[in-house]
Amino acid sequence: MDGGREGRGRRIVILAEGQFGEEGSKTARGVLRYGSDPVVAVIDSTRAGRTVADFMGPGPRYDGVPVVSGIGETLSLPEPPDSLLVGIAPAGGKLPDEWRTTILEALAAGMDVVSGLHVFLGDDPEFAAAARAQGARIEDLRRPPERMECAVGRAHLPGKQVILTVGTDCALGKMSVAIELAAAARREGRRALMLPTGQTGMMIEGWGVTIDRVAGDFIQGTMEWLTQEAERRADWIFVEGQGSLDHLAYSAVTLGLIHGTTPQAMVMVHQPGREWHIDWETAGEMARLKPLPEFIRLHERVAALVRPSKVVAVALNTSLAADEAAARSMIEQVAAETGLPTDDPFRFGGDRLFAAVRAALE
Amino acid sequence: MDGGREGRGRRIVILAEGQFGEEGSKTARGVLRYGSDPVVAVIDSTRAGRTVADFMGPGPRYDGVPVVSGIGETLSLPEPPDSLLVGIAPAGGKLPDEWRTTILEALAAGMDVVSGLHVFLGDDPEFAAAARAQGARIEDLRRPPERMECAVGRAHLPGKQVILTVGTDCALGKMSVAIELAAAARREGRRALMLPTGQTGMMIEGWGVTIDRVAGDFIQGTMEWLTQEAERRADWIFVEGQGSLDHLAYSAVTLGLIHGTTPQAMVMVHQPGREWHIDWETAGEMARLKPLPEFIRLHERVAALVRPSKVVAVALNTSLAADEAAARSMIEQVAAETGLPTDDPFRFGGDRLFAAVRAALE
Repeated sequence: MDGGREGRGRRIVILAEGQFGEEGSKTARGVLRYGSDPVVAVIDSTRAGRTVADFMGPGPRYDGVPVVSGIGETLSLPEPPDSLLVGIAPAGGKLPDEWRTTILEALAAGMDVVSGLHVFLGDDPEFAAAARAQGARIEDLRRPPERMECAVGRAHLPGKQVILTVGTDCALGKMSVAIELAAAARREGRRALMLPTGQTGMMIEGWGVTIDRVAGDFIQGTMEWLTQEAERRADWIFVEGQGSLDHLAYSAVTLGLIHGTTPQAMVMVHQPGREWHIDWETAGEMARLKPLPEFIRLHERVAALVRPSKVVAVALNTSLAADEAAARSMIEQVAAETGLPTDDPFRFGGDRLFAAVRAALE
Repeated sequence: MDGGREGRGRRIVILAEGQFGEEGSKTARGVLRYGSDPVVAVIDSTRAGRTVADFMGPGPRYDGVPVVSGIGETLSLPEPPDSLLVGIAPAGGKLPDEWRTTILEALAAGMDVVSGLHVFLGDDPEFAAAARAQGARIEDLRRPPERMECAVGRAHLPGKQVILTVGTDCALGKMSVAIELAAAARREGRRALMLPTGQTGMMIEGWGVTIDRVAGDFIQGTMEWLTQEAERRADWIFVEGQGSLDHLAYSAVTLGLIHGTTPQAMVMVHQPGREWHIDWETAGEMARLKPLPEFIRLHERVAALVRPSKVVAVALNTSLAADEAAARSMIEQVAAETGLPTDDPFRFGGDRLFAAVRAALE
């Protein structure tokens, strides 16, 4: 478990070469939107000269932040960055060769490098030597904890509420929903947090474990341990979900989260209009998303194999809606279809959805 | 994927200190019963002076094999061993301190050491130095493959049958059932194999991956790749299952096997009389085994999230039956309860169960 990065006051430049604003840059966008440390630039030479807001819409945390072509440009900023964050999350996590130069330039300038890639930058002799030469640090967020323990069947502490976001696919907002629900809970005066289980969440919150890199035997034990730590820090814990229970590549991780966190409730996240698992469209029928009501019931049955849990609300990603009216219509339709409180907490804020979760649990 | 150990003609001594014949020695017993290389001794100082058959009953592969107190005794055997196999599989896979001496003695005598522990012996400086000094090799079966690829949704080759053993718990015979079914298929003239997914299976078959040590993101991709390799080698593939879908510590691995191998059929393995997940009895209700008919249907629903599959037979471990008549009665009862062909392939051979699987698939 990594701790203490929160409030360290990094000034961040995010590497998102060739992908900023696209699907592959979700880590970059997550940190820009939710991170506590300031982002001073985004590197994407194909989009240099524009600003972050051109791609993400206006936002108080990143208005005016430039997209630049490389490390060189960032050095002449009024407040140059002290940390390069590798803001990409490709399937498999491999490092594109062309990014080596940028990383080496950052290390040569004395910047720390923070990476969520499956390939550990700190194990690369060239990167390690460059970091040593400048006293810079390489942080590989995906490096699993030394701790290798199986789950023991721990019970939640009294008064703690653990809510897991599950979903119909990857990359549709399970982390954002957890963040928005935690923020809504805090607005109501609750001690609440988002428990990060992926590299973007870790970059935002400054702790957590990238659970998809943990060995199978220890996924559930690690989630049990993280949940215990979260219960020390807060009363309402919104766990960042991963993958989906029907995902041909990632379902093992999803089930490990369900059975490892033993949530008191789940929130189902879905993007109306998405019909196929993203990036697996060519796999045919096995990549088709499942109808929501049946999929929700199956989550409850599967969770109950270890501990009873209900899906108490649906969080929609309505980004494919043409306008707000269309988004509201999607929400109404899914609420009718599932019989569950439904909202888009990203578009409309998490207050109503949190109220529904709270009503179901208290 | 490790290959080529098959037929290498090792002479094995198995380390099972303090546990031979007990639950914790299932790796030792698996290799004694099914391995192709000869076992010349078992080390367990608490049982020294007796023979393997005293604990496992008579068996042509190990009749007369002595249980000895340490490496020293094995050096004076007519055919001394050339390999020490660490035949224990404790929860978590940690190395008991008291075994270090035995391993160092084996390495000092020039023996190779083969281990399925989570802790990698080859990474231990003292073991590594001792091996180097004698030109001995340390093989850590649990070391995951370098390959880090996600599943892509590969289809099975025409004419190939992939059957996965699933179960109501760990340590009740999923590997043995796969081995017995493959043997029965070969007796009928089929090209068949057991696909090993754990360290014992790897020791027996000489290839495979210990899937519980693979990172979550790559469990399904690794199983897809192993299945592809198995389809090159045979027509009937019986995949060694792991854990159980309702296991509070291991269900992630189980689901990864189901969705990674996309089996055409599953065989459910159960031990009548077992009511709680072994070693998790203190976890309360979450460790209670599930009723078979409902659990079988749930496996089919969960498998179908990626590829339709049926449980086509039940393989019982009737070792808790008082006698053969009681075992037959257990089998009849479960057959009636589930409506599925049911047998104990370990006690009665795999022919009838294989016939049932074949009938369901052909």
